[in-house]
Amino acid sequence: MKAEIIAIGTEILMGQILNTNAQFLAQQLTELGVGHYIQTAIGDNPDRLAAVTKQAEERSDIIIYSGGIGPTRDDLTKQALSAYLDEPLVYDEENLDRVRQDFSRRQATMSDLNQGMSLYFSRGKSLRNPVGQAVGTALVKDGRLYIVLPGFPKEMRAMFLEEGKALIQDFIAGESRQVLTSRYLNYYGLGESQLAESLDDLIQSQENPTIGTYSKNNVLTLRLTASGSDEGTTQGLLDTLEETINDRVGAYYYGQGLDYMPSQALVQTLKTKQKTVSLAESLTGGMAAAAIVDCPGASEIFEGGVVTYSLQAKRDVLGVSTETLDQEGMVSQACAKEMAERCRQLFQTDYALSFTGVAGPDQMEGQDVGTVFIGIAGPDDCQVHRLHLSGQRENIRRSAVHAACLALIQKLN
Amino acid sequence: MKAEIIAIGTEILMGQILNTNAQFLAQQLTELGVGHYIQTAIGDNPDRLAAVTKQAEERSDIIIYSGGIGPTRDDLTKQALSAYLDEPLVYDEENLDRVRQDFSRRQATMSDLNQGMSLYFSRGKSLRNPVGQAVGTALVKDGRLYIVLPGFPKEMRAMFLEEGKALIQDFIAGESRQVLTSRYLNYYGLGESQLAESLDDLIQSQENPTIGTYSKNNVLTLRLTASGSDEGTTQGLLDTLEETINDRVGAYYYGQGLDYMPSQALVQTLKTKQKTVSLAESLTGGMAAAAIVDCPGASEIFEGGVVTYSLQAKRDVLGVSTETLDQEGMVSQACAKEMAERCRQLFQTDYALSFTGVAGPDQMEGQDVGTVFIGIAGPDDCQVHRLHLSGQRENIRRSAVHAACLALIQKLN
Repeated sequence: MKAEIIAIGTEILMGQILNTNAQFLAQQLTELGVGHYIQTAIGDNPDRLAAVTKQAEERSDIIIYSGGIGPTRDDLTKQALSAYLDEPLVYDEENLDRVRQDFSRRQATMSDLNQGMSLYFSRGKSLRNPVGQAVGTALVKDGRLYIVLPGFPKEMRAMFLEEGKALIQDFIAGESRQVLTSRYLNYYGLGESQLAESLDDLIQSQENPTIGTYSKNNVLTLRLTASGSDEGTTQGLLDTLEETINDRVGAYYYGQGLDYMPSQALVQTLKTKQKTVSLAESLTGGMAAAAIVDCPGASEIFEGGVVTYSLQAKRDVLGVSTETLDQEGMVSQACAKEMAERCRQLFQTDYALSFTGVAGPDQMEGQDVGTVFIGIAGPDDCQVHRLHLSGQRENIRRSAVHAACLALIQKLN
Repeated sequence: MKAEIIAIGTEILMGQILNTNAQFLAQQLTELGVGHYIQTAIGDNPDRLAAVTKQAEERSDIIIYSGGIGPTRDDLTKQALSAYLDEPLVYDEENLDRVRQDFSRRQATMSDLNQGMSLYFSRGKSLRNPVGQAVGTALVKDGRLYIVLPGFPKEMRAMFLEEGKALIQDFIAGESRQVLTSRYLNYYGLGESQLAESLDDLIQSQENPTIGTYSKNNVLTLRLTASGSDEGTTQGLLDTLEETINDRVGAYYYGQGLDYMPSQALVQTLKTKQKTVSLAESLTGGMAAAAIVDCPGASEIFEGGVVTYSLQAKRDVLGVSTETLDQEGMVSQACAKEMAERCRQLFQTDYALSFTGVAGPDQMEGQDVGTVFIGIAGPDDCQVHRLHLSGQRENIRRSAVHAACLALIQKLN
């Protein structure tokens, strides 16, 4: 079973808007366990729509369109597809009434173009739009499923989740509908190739559950998707596989969930343990604080932080000793230690994290780009970790934040 | 002359990353006046790359690839294209040396895959990567231009702007080369529809220069593109149009440049005036500091900042008076004023900015979501601006940072 996604809209080709619909639909297809090998974006042009549909039919069983079903003269997706497939369109009278009432309430005049928003394939299905006026439509023809969705991301998402998803599930399942369940496992501290090697046999022999790997800023995510007759079965399959995987690489595991960052894991752990934290940042320049503040519930555990970017600020605001700064330098174990300890005192928190290092592009105090010291001060002691990170300034900073969050979680557990 | 864009990366198909490269390249093609009717995204798969290339050749004169030139086993774009086009690859020895040195400095082992990053078409051109290790490559064959760029957005952008753009210009200009010059004008503080209305006649009648509008986090950008026989002519046309535009909306203008943020404008202004700044952040939680630190040359003008997320931190670390906190609250003009003044003293800077307000999702101290106070303390006085911002937490924070940077620039001028 293969699917593909076709986005329609001249604004996309002009670079005026980002094609976020393709990403959303790609995630949904991945979760549904439907293979998907190509995404296309074209303008509002009937000939081109027919041409890409023809190519899509040679490759795929499910074709999902988004865009071009609104009320402007450019919006021609349903009409173009109707002509290409030789399938008539009819009005969804219920939707038409709803739109008519809306127009009369606003004392606005309804044009032919507005009426067109209620068209759907007469031999197919009208897809309700929970947040807008235009209906989508779906049709099964010659063993293929065609789904037409709106271009507005909010409308597209709502319509897909409420109508499109079930259509795809029915289509792929045939009579005996299967449940599909995904689980995301997150890891930090091991390379992508190291993870792939450790799980090579599992990845090669995957069937049910399937396994996918992703990486971003040194965070590795495994997506496991299981299918079965019911949720109990799929969760059981996922539990077993998760256990096998974490027997091998559990040392690097920090939590479950899509886009689940180490900072979120830290906020959760601190909340559970009822501990507070503060931050002393040099090379990360506020990024660690911003990452914490971005997590729900941060205010319960986060007091605040200092960004001591200059030597003077480290000395005068945070109180790092002149001796340390002169003899050891700003990028040193001793400086990271004092930053964390002083920060903890200043903010009167249970723990404090400190960051000093070289984000680049140039060396500093003879230390290479990517050298980072992280201090973790607690009630009993202060540890310092030395890291060697690679990548651009932004990656080095982001990765340092991840590493520090996970180091503190480890200390807390 | 037609172009198309092919993004390569399984992460895109899995929905793991947004295909922002397509948008950037679409904007660039629009600026260059090159027609562009289709965008495609595929996985790291040589057969599919060959298939879409074959289709692209039937439609287009310029084919731009991004992605799949890194050091993992999946990265096969150059190799796959080499096989399809029957064009040999060779090593860019200069780049290879550079990468080798980098590896030996980090005491890391260089694999065959790492070497592959220096390959390019022997009958074409190697494209230098200003911010990474992998070179791109370009080739003209059978009247078509093929350009291979990295997948990492930062690398792709830099390589396109420094190398790819000129190649396209040369290719489309042939003998009688027209110069195309673009200028980006950035505005903050007026709505997109307000801007469109103010410039309606200019946008409707645009010919040369052309005008495009973009918006992100309340920053509006106008792209003006002029064509002419030489740079003097195009710059003259841009100067005239810029003057006409800024006669109307100049009050909201803050600077020129693609992705030029208010924080960059502030860093530049402070450098020119040789003044320093520090930051006291509550609702922005370190985001303002991170934005400043992200700008080249930040260390010359930025001492540091405090993130005082809790009431205690505002009182104990920054020294905001108990009276103010009790009587006026944390989200108040008085608190913003004291935060900025105390921060300026603490860091001994010429200026200090403070941020306090409600990012949401809930009200605070009876103040609505989006209420933000920004303090600007200087040698002579401390002003406070009250803002009413809309959008998600992230938008409100980002927009507050923009507003504060621009308010300080105004004070400095």
